[in-house]
Amino acid sequence: MKIEILLYDGVTALDAIGPYEVLHLLPGAAVSFVARTPGRIETDAGIPLFNADKAVEDCGDADIIVVPGTPTPSVVMNDAVVLDWIRRSHENTRWTTSVCTGAALLGAAGLLEGLEATTHWLGLDMLATFGANPTSQRVVRQGNIITAAGVSSGIDMALTLAAIECGKAVAQEIQLIIEYDPQPPFNAGSPEKAGPAITASIRSKFSLG
Amino acid sequence: MKIEILLYDGVTALDAIGPYEVLHLLPGAAVSFVARTPGRIETDAGIPLFNADKAVEDCGDADIIVVPGTPTPSVVMNDAVVLDWIRRSHENTRWTTSVCTGAALLGAAGLLEGLEATTHWLGLDMLATFGANPTSQRVVRQGNIITAAGVSSGIDMALTLAAIECGKAVAQEIQLIIEYDPQPPFNAGSPEKAGPAITASIRSKFSLG
Repeated sequence: MKIEILLYDGVTALDAIGPYEVLHLLPGAAVSFVARTPGRIETDAGIPLFNADKAVEDCGDADIIVVPGTPTPSVVMNDAVVLDWIRRSHENTRWTTSVCTGAALLGAAGLLEGLEATTHWLGLDMLATFGANPTSQRVVRQGNIITAAGVSSGIDMALTLAAIECGKAVAQEIQLIIEYDPQPPFNAGSPEKAGPAITASIRSKFSLG
Repeated sequence: MKIEILLYDGVTALDAIGPYEVLHLLPGAAVSFVARTPGRIETDAGIPLFNADKAVEDCGDADIIVVPGTPTPSVVMNDAVVLDWIRRSHENTRWTTSVCTGAALLGAAGLLEGLEATTHWLGLDMLATFGANPTSQRVVRQGNIITAAGVSSGIDMALTLAAIECGKAVAQEIQLIIEYDPQPPFNAGSPEKAGPAITASIRSKFSLG
């Protein structure tokens, strides 16, 4: 099973690596990290952490693609080469997926028209501009498109996908291998749970665009 | 706050990236990825995904170090240069941390003698060989050493550390930024929760060494 994970300068690392850690354990998985230009890729903190080994122009026949997000999606939303890879890939994929503001890239590629979709809680309004119906669920499946909420949600999305594609037992085995038995020390993972003060603080410091 | 995250060929990607995604959001954080030899680093799936930008020989004065794990810890457990970086760093760190079998590297460096520590559930026995008292808790703090269980547990560890170092509100804000509101589709993240059949299946396919 051919899996391509998009990288680009400004990418949020965990958006890409959460799904990677699950999906590379699928039976027969062959994972590539693809980018407009192969080579070094910076995270959203400006750290040259990643290498992409394939150019998106040479790709387009994957079974699964993963489009991770970034605090600055507008840069990639205007990259015709990357959007073309999303569109060409989606003609062939079994599953087209996004994490966080990766959904905005699916939207910019024209894939979310009329569909329910999710993204980072700070970016839900953005999805409506692409004709999508934003929903704050953590993982949203519409046909063979699966969108996930912010950053860490890609792990839940990939386990969901693993179960659909390979069965519940395979997904549970992967969950046990990565010991995904979450025990966050606080209950602040959504605006509702974090409460108005913490949510307002984040809104004052961060915006997506 | 100077944070160094170790990379090496065979590293489990999420072990490093879970804590990174949390810790780089600490106020004043400056994160480096360090390795025996800077340059390309392969994941445990053999994918040349990472770049390390500093040699461990040039490091040793970080405030926080993170030692991620691998299915094959014995290779790095015998790397005197890396173990020396762990020992030198630990003389200066505010926090010395590990994820998964990264605990075996702390053990090999002599840091776990007489301490409680955790690691991937498949590797708990290994810790006793270093004089540690293995415990299957998800995050274990002993003085300024914090060990975390398998792979995904590094996120919980880093949020715990964020709260100790910078206060509960900072940790909750980071949890909300990374939308860490885990909703795994199954309850199979520990041997007890996955049950004997799935656990036996993993034991038959994977071993750490």
